[in-house]
Amino acid sequence: MDKTEQDRLKKAAGIEAAKLVENGMTAGLGTGSTVRFFVDELGRRVKEEGLEFTGVTTSRRTKEQAEGYGIRIVDIDQVDHIDVTIDGADEVDKNFNGIKGGGAALLWEKIVATNSRKIVWIVDESKVVDTIGRFPLPVEVIPFGERHVLDRFKERGYNPVLRMDGQGQPVLTDEHNHIIDLHLERIEHPQDLAQDLITTVGVVEHGLFLNMVDTVIVGDPNGPRVMTNANK
Amino acid sequence: MDKTEQDRLKKAAGIEAAKLVENGMTAGLGTGSTVRFFVDELGRRVKEEGLEFTGVTTSRRTKEQAEGYGIRIVDIDQVDHIDVTIDGADEVDKNFNGIKGGGAALLWEKIVATNSRKIVWIVDESKVVDTIGRFPLPVEVIPFGERHVLDRFKERGYNPVLRMDGQGQPVLTDEHNHIIDLHLERIEHPQDLAQDLITTVGVVEHGLFLNMVDTVIVGDPNGPRVMTNANK
Repeated sequence: MDKTEQDRLKKAAGIEAAKLVENGMTAGLGTGSTVRFFVDELGRRVKEEGLEFTGVTTSRRTKEQAEGYGIRIVDIDQVDHIDVTIDGADEVDKNFNGIKGGGAALLWEKIVATNSRKIVWIVDESKVVDTIGRFPLPVEVIPFGERHVLDRFKERGYNPVLRMDGQGQPVLTDEHNHIIDLHLERIEHPQDLAQDLITTVGVVEHGLFLNMVDTVIVGDPNGPRVMTNANK
Repeated sequence: MDKTEQDRLKKAAGIEAAKLVENGMTAGLGTGSTVRFFVDELGRRVKEEGLEFTGVTTSRRTKEQAEGYGIRIVDIDQVDHIDVTIDGADEVDKNFNGIKGGGAALLWEKIVATNSRKIVWIVDESKVVDTIGRFPLPVEVIPFGERHVLDRFKERGYNPVLRMDGQGQPVLTDEHNHIIDLHLERIEHPQDLAQDLITTVGVVEHGLFLNMVDTVIVGDPNGPRVMTNANK
């Protein structure tokens, strides 16, 4: 599929997801290329339909984009709860286990998701997989002592790589931490892996989002397709 | 016990612990009032005895104190391992489960401890308890979304209090996070609590150090007393 066609599908999914935001709601706004189309559509609805809602964002990038449309963005600590969060994902399987964090925003994304009554992911077809793990799993780590975390991950066969930016420096997250990507290919036991990662001292959070999402909207050439999680 | 007498015992324990640092070692230097005496004694040995070792510190405070004595301090990521780490503790029980983080340095302290071949705590008698928990348990949290973490801890009966500084602002850790102190009085099941805390999204680390310490040196009026952990 070429990029233009992929963008068309992403945009269709983004427009579909924007229908979920209603007047008076508090909505979590995710991060990523598909979410960008979704926020564009919200901006259009604010302008043309007078939609009024409050947004909570998962990254500085999305905050800037949304505020550019005049969307009211508040800090997560100013709201009691979030009605619905719409975000992207890097991979999701049929059990609604997913990987997020390709854009290095996984920590705030997980905090927003945890405080949301409903979670919706918008993805293109290429993100729906049988087994997660081909997409490198991002792990946010404290820079202090990260070499030892890398060593530990190597010993465990996780194929860790510290993520670098274009200038050859470690990528900095919004919380000024670093990202280690685990090149695992197949994650057969995601719950066990999540437990191992989160109890590793120096790990702040990881990109496994296990059975958290309620609905996945998939950009499909025949129109957006909706997968509903019955086990949540 | 008055403060002068307490300081005398702390100093005696600190001097005893300084004997554990030998020429050529890499030593982890902790944080706190007892550790301060320990670093003073290391400074004296460097000057008077020509002791040569490399230090890795668990806080900016200790780094400044040690460098003031001409002790060579390196970043934890510059060393393969740490031979011995000497640190304080806020509470420790007979099973060698402890609470640390009263000085807000628990994250770096835990990272240094995790990478140390031997861990020694120096404490005064008042820190040795039957059941940990009277000392409020510090939990380092990401500021983003912390109100919701506080709410969750309240629901679980943890009596959480966001730690404030003298200016009425949240205390900032060396990693620019905040500290929530849990007023639990008695922690009957520390392993279960540790698991609950570390899997709470937004928590970076907690002050439970469970069966990590090898040796506890207790400042005692009859001379420093040594408790050795046989189960590690």
